[in-house]
Amino acid sequence: MTEPTTDLDPGLAEAGAVLATESARFASFGWMRGTSGNLSVVTSRDPLRLAVTASGLDKGELTASDVVLVDAAGNAVSGGRPSAEAALHARVARLTGAGAVVHVHTVASVAVAWRRPEGIIFRDVEMLKGVGRPTHAEEVMLPVIANSQDMTVLGDRLEAARDPRMPAVVVAGHGLYVWGADPRQARHHTEVVEWLLELELAKG
Amino acid sequence: MTEPTTDLDPGLAEAGAVLATESARFASFGWMRGTSGNLSVVTSRDPLRLAVTASGLDKGELTASDVVLVDAAGNAVSGGRPSAEAALHARVARLTGAGAVVHVHTVASVAVAWRRPEGIIFRDVEMLKGVGRPTHAEEVMLPVIANSQDMTVLGDRLEAARDPRMPAVVVAGHGLYVWGADPRQARHHTEVVEWLLELELAKG
Amino acid sequence: MTEPTTDLDPGLAEAGAVLATESARFASFGWMRGTSGNLSVVTSRDPLRLAVTASGLDKGELTASDVVLVDAAGNAVSGGRPSAEAALHARVARLTGAGAVVHVHTVASVAVAWRRPEGIIFRDVEMLKGVGRPTHAEEVMLPVIANSQDMTVLGDRLEAARDPRMPAVVVAGHGLYVWGADPRQARHHTEVVEWLLELELAKG
Amino acid sequence: MTEPTTDLDPGLAEAGAVLATESARFASFGWMRGTSGNLSVVTSRDPLRLAVTASGLDKGELTASDVVLVDAAGNAVSGGRPSAEAALHARVARLTGAGAVVHVHTVASVAVAWRRPEGIIFRDVEMLKGVGRPTHAEEVMLPVIANSQDMTVLGDRLEAARDPRMPAVVVAGHGLYVWGADPRQARHHTEVVEWLLELELAKG
Repeated sequence: MTEPTTDLDPGLAEAGAVLATESARFASFGWMRGTSGNLSVVTSRDPLRLAVTASGLDKGELTASDVVLVDAAGNAVSGGRPSAEAALHARVARLTGAGAVVHVHTVASVAVAWRRPEGIIFRDVEMLKGVGRPTHAEEVMLPVIANSQDMTVLGDRLEAARDPRMPAVVVAGHGLYVWGADPRQARHHTEVVEWLLELELAKG
Repeated sequence: MTEPTTDLDPGLAEAGAVLATESARFASFGWMRGTSGNLSVVTSRDPLRLAVTASGLDKGELTASDVVLVDAAGNAVSGGRPSAEAALHARVARLTGAGAVVHVHTVASVAVAWRRPEGIIFRDVEMLKGVGRPTHAEEVMLPVIANSQDMTVLGDRLEAARDPRMPAVVVAGHGLYVWGADPRQARHHTEVVEWLLELELAKG
Repeated sequence: MTEPTTDLDPGLAEAGAVLATESARFASFGWMRGTSGNLSVVTSRDPLRLAVTASGLDKGELTASDVVLVDAAGNAVSGGRPSAEAALHARVARLTGAGAVVHVHTVASVAVAWRRPEGIIFRDVEMLKGVGRPTHAEEVMLPVIANSQDMTVLGDRLEAARDPRMPAVVVAGHGLYVWGADPRQARHHTEVVEWLLELELAKG
Repeated sequence: MTEPTTDLDPGLAEAGAVLATESARFASFGWMRGTSGNLSVVTSRDPLRLAVTASGLDKGELTASDVVLVDAAGNAVSGGRPSAEAALHARVARLTGAGAVVHVHTVASVAVAWRRPEGIIFRDVEMLKGVGRPTHAEEVMLPVIANSQDMTVLGDRLEAARDPRMPAVVVAGHGLYVWGADPRQARHHTEVVEWLLELELAKG
């Protein structure tokens, strides 16, 4: 797809390879249409560094070099051009301690949040155990926050709204932010949250 | 994905390979999102032994060694950590004589059971022949049972509710248990029951 | 999957290979769940002979030898066990002059026919050109007939209901019969009819 | 699939290979059922020449030679038989300056246009940035035009209805026309517009 813009650090290229695989998976589900969405993985905690997928590319066609290293503010340290949303990835990593963040544009997340702008309440669903709840009987809310093009505003809303029991937030009219300890757990959390949203749609 | 935790018995590894293939198939349909669901195959009747997929792994990425041998109570005999649900697989095998059990989390099963908590009645559908009914004209109920984290409670409910003419039960807010003489028949029963549920959703 | 039951005639094996490929395609769409559905291709007109997919097998896993040669009454001439529905395939071939017949179980066909038991009327849809109509502006009905386990009864209903302008009939509570000059045209007609039915569902 | 009808110009064959890949992608999404739809790429501006996919073939099975070179009127310059719709591709290229045009038959486009024959208004959706809008907050209309078998009539309607801020038009009862600077951008625009339409359907 793209020429590597730098001689990538081997560690960054390895992170890029993981992100490319995960992106291709989500793209195959139709959750990253066009060039939408982005994924990240924390490569260092102190100082905070995240490898983030490069902006403007087809998320089903990324290679290991389609990756950018950003700092805690989402600014590029090495690699190509990050999305403005890289700043939000970094903020989620700082705020939650997550090691990986997934941002996807799913139809279900936008459709359900449109009906439930105050947040989406789940209860009596076994699948809640897939985001770490001890039992299906617990009631948990998936927060919905208003959209903004300003990543500081969006991050403030996410910080104010998030529930530590739910590793995800819906941005209204936009899509999902989901996180986990590593890319595989973030993937599983994403799949579980999307399943819960598709169930809401199917219930009518 | 995972290191084999023991030198697996060749018979168990063979069962594991079959379960890995079947799991990957169901995962590709979106019926095992996150790490949800589990599959089993009976390897011995007396004493009862089942090979069950290992817990906590991505069901699209299992290998032949991601399998546990459990006894009639669902306790591990060899291999890694079984899901608590292994006990229910073993109980289904004892109760029904089934040689294979499928447990998947499908959106349709939870959505339809939410509307019909007393059970889902099918009639005048040719697809009923796919679960062994002699004609489309027979009326059959797919039982719905309440969910529980206690496998004994769940097994008692399944035993009380099941209809010998329908090799499946829905656990409300949770998913499907389906069984058959062997993994391929259990697969086909699962596909047929899910099709019937998707039809119910589509009828509105 | 299965052992060849006879030394297949090379021509029959070739037909079997085509049918296996077409079946795998339809199975991948979820239109042949369990072991449902069957496909045929005319191999001789006088006397009438059809190669039909063997019964009871997974339609995504057929091989070139999973095929039966049947006569105008649907009785096996060579190969394994045909489905009872082979008789209906033969009747469609006689009645319409079709060279290939597709029978699939789609959710949309059963769901829409359940709402419109008198037949499904399409108009003002460009996709009608895909079943041979000269323009989108023509009004055409897709007939719906009642189901039966008796292939003579079902054939009589199909013969009475069919419209020469529409190479398909829905069997209520059952699925679709679609035909064409050869397997590829039958495939395209099947895809077009199913698309039209999915549109009806989506219109609500 | 088809024998090359001419010794194709290498440049045309290269365009054909790109179109075949893009077509197979859209076909895999179910957006080109039967033999529906067609894709084009501009190969020369002065005089205007477009490579267009050949008519009547399965869009998931095209090869590099299943392509026709047409002029500004949609008439064949070299290669096989173009669809009548090639004239509309050429007109879109002239009118908008696009380098690639996608015409697909999606269920969502027809279903949503059926409810909103005056045009489909989108607002407060981040995905609008995927068709070039600077922010989610802008309100944009996706025009809907009446269908016709006359490409001049259809082109006049498209020219009258189109909004320069939206690289797409829905033809009622028919499908989508979408364009972009090159085949990849046209692909991304198509995916984004279809996502927006699927969201409309999901909102109910």
